[in-house]
Amino acid sequence: MPFSIPTPIAWTADRAVRILDQTLLPQEETYRDLDSVEAVAEAIRMLRVRGAPLIGIAAAMGVVLAGKRGSGEAGKVAGQRGREAAGQHQLDWVIHACDILAGTRPTAVNLKWALDRMRRRAKEALEQSEDLEQSLFEEANAIWEEDRAMCRRIGELGASLTPAGATICTICNAGALATGGIGTALAPVYLLQERGAAPQVVVPETRPLLQGSRLTAWELTRAGIACTVIADGMIASRLRLGDVACVIVGADRIAANGDVANKIGTYGLALAAREHGIPFYVAVPSSTVDLATPDGAHIPIEQRDQGEVVNWRGSPIAPEGVRAWNPAFDVTPAELVTAIITDRGIVSAAELSRLPFTVHRSPPSHLSPLTSHPSP
Amino acid sequence: MPFSIPTPIAWTADRAVRILDQTLLPQEETYRDLDSVEAVAEAIRMLRVRGAPLIGIAAAMGVVLAGKRGSGEAGKVAGQRGREAAGQHQLDWVIHACDILAGTRPTAVNLKWALDRMRRRAKEALEQSEDLEQSLFEEANAIWEEDRAMCRRIGELGASLTPAGATICTICNAGALATGGIGTALAPVYLLQERGAAPQVVVPETRPLLQGSRLTAWELTRAGIACTVIADGMIASRLRLGDVACVIVGADRIAANGDVANKIGTYGLALAAREHGIPFYVAVPSSTVDLATPDGAHIPIEQRDQGEVVNWRGSPIAPEGVRAWNPAFDVTPAELVTAIITDRGIVSAAELSRLPFTVHRSPPSHLSPLTSHPSP
Repeated sequence: MPFSIPTPIAWTADRAVRILDQTLLPQEETYRDLDSVEAVAEAIRMLRVRGAPLIGIAAAMGVVLAGKRGSGEAGKVAGQRGREAAGQHQLDWVIHACDILAGTRPTAVNLKWALDRMRRRAKEALEQSEDLEQSLFEEANAIWEEDRAMCRRIGELGASLTPAGATICTICNAGALATGGIGTALAPVYLLQERGAAPQVVVPETRPLLQGSRLTAWELTRAGIACTVIADGMIASRLRLGDVACVIVGADRIAANGDVANKIGTYGLALAAREHGIPFYVAVPSSTVDLATPDGAHIPIEQRDQGEVVNWRGSPIAPEGVRAWNPAFDVTPAELVTAIITDRGIVSAAELSRLPFTVHRSPPSHLSPLTSHPSP
Repeated sequence: MPFSIPTPIAWTADRAVRILDQTLLPQEETYRDLDSVEAVAEAIRMLRVRGAPLIGIAAAMGVVLAGKRGSGEAGKVAGQRGREAAGQHQLDWVIHACDILAGTRPTAVNLKWALDRMRRRAKEALEQSEDLEQSLFEEANAIWEEDRAMCRRIGELGASLTPAGATICTICNAGALATGGIGTALAPVYLLQERGAAPQVVVPETRPLLQGSRLTAWELTRAGIACTVIADGMIASRLRLGDVACVIVGADRIAANGDVANKIGTYGLALAAREHGIPFYVAVPSSTVDLATPDGAHIPIEQRDQGEVVNWRGSPIAPEGVRAWNPAFDVTPAELVTAIITDRGIVSAAELSRLPFTVHRSPPSHLSPLTSHPSP
């Protein structure tokens, strides 16, 4: 069953980064070409590009822009001070770009992970006298391509957990608009749709920025998948109805103990799912698991501007001068998570830290659903 | 400590019903004069007047308008067919008005309760050859006056449960804008403020119609009470912070077993409160308790238009054609309710059905906090 999945990021012919500006959806489908690290950083900070995996890809592509700029600058230096100084100068550009991009959003670990990879690749390229710009371009594309493959693998594993015609509840957007492929939480939904299994989705609108109603509903509707939007306060009542087969959400970071940082509202959704005996799955690429963060209390939570809560498209929805609280994420404790669906297999929170979560170029093919990582 | 509390309803000099149009808050403070039952019904249906106790008062005042209109009509009938026929004609007008008003909103039991009282009073007046219009006017004012006194009594009892400087979490608006007095859930807050105890309030915005950010934040800010608005999805995270002393909400109907129908989102708030060991109180006038409804499953839940969820002030916030679910209320099971604060005393859900919940003209003065109704 063919259907259309949006492409939130691409290269232009002259290697600028083309993004779908997600702040304008669902009214406008506007693409922007970004030709500097600063422009990519702005797009990430303003949520024009969002979703933990896509932020990682966009940042890697931003580093390529820095490498390109650095090449031009290095050419001048080489003429004055020789090739070695020129190479160091180019590397400085790349590292500076990584610092700018790392400062855009604090919670998603994929961003840090992707930048670490780009920085490492830049150093290697210089050590081995490879073309820095081309090496970075290939590394960014590899990150993107791996993400696409991981999404598909997550989709296959997740689809095995959900019966045909199932109603699945998610939150925010962990779909094609949040990744380089068919999404994480929505990947099983797309797989089921591909197989003609007619999945249905319930999505809370996800205030303050409405990624549920604006983005998830938009991409599912484009794909012909039945989607019902609810207000965030309706979650517990909706799960009580008894027809939701499971909850599948994405994550911005998973700590070593299995605590999950995801869009604000996820924790309340998890409490309601437990109350009604509904499985609560977290679907992520393995790069979202951060074994260096022991638990949820150690995950930095981004606090965003109060205006996002008390204004709507520029006009106030609360009296002047009233305060607001606006954390972008919350932490769902590991004990509320039924299982974590990764490209490396389906695992319980408790098993996470026992897994070798190094990233492989291709996901192992022998993993079967509902098993944890097999013995090597 | 004097402070300003808004008056959402009043009589005009010529006995029309003047309401503060709550759909326009917080941007505009616009009052509308309603001179027919139909206009009052429209105002209730469109939520210009809302909040279970205030709906009861507004409906009673609407019946007065019908009695006034009926007097005029009856005058003509009397000339043609005699006084008895005229009286019956006038009563028909009143009963017809009660039917129109009863159909406006299905969940709040105060509406039914107030209309029953007005209907009964009209019959009595005719039987005893009293002036129907004046009798209805006095009965509506009695309902209003009793509500004002009940709010105050609820406030005193509720304030005894909350320490000075406490942070209290509520949802939607069960304040002055929802009643004929200082509110139900917000009454303890106003009492604490009156005593200089500097209460603080956290309120979820309460989508889709934002009664939390538009109304509760507005009336508290006017009264100089510190108020923080959060998105509905932030509730569980906010309660986890540990500084919220208690949750106090209003209700539209409480069933005999203690199940509580209140604004959608209340059930999720109650789950989060239990998870974090925070007392969850429901503050209501005793007319909200409906012993004829055995449990929450028997409370009719108003389903409102999908457009309230997928549009914001006329412009779409979700893709065209997407479905929405929009129940106005949810049911919080009795076991999540720590206590019910009524004008008759503080009771547990289990004690409700043992109470003689007849309405007295003045609340008994010998009730003390944290006790149930005393033996007669």
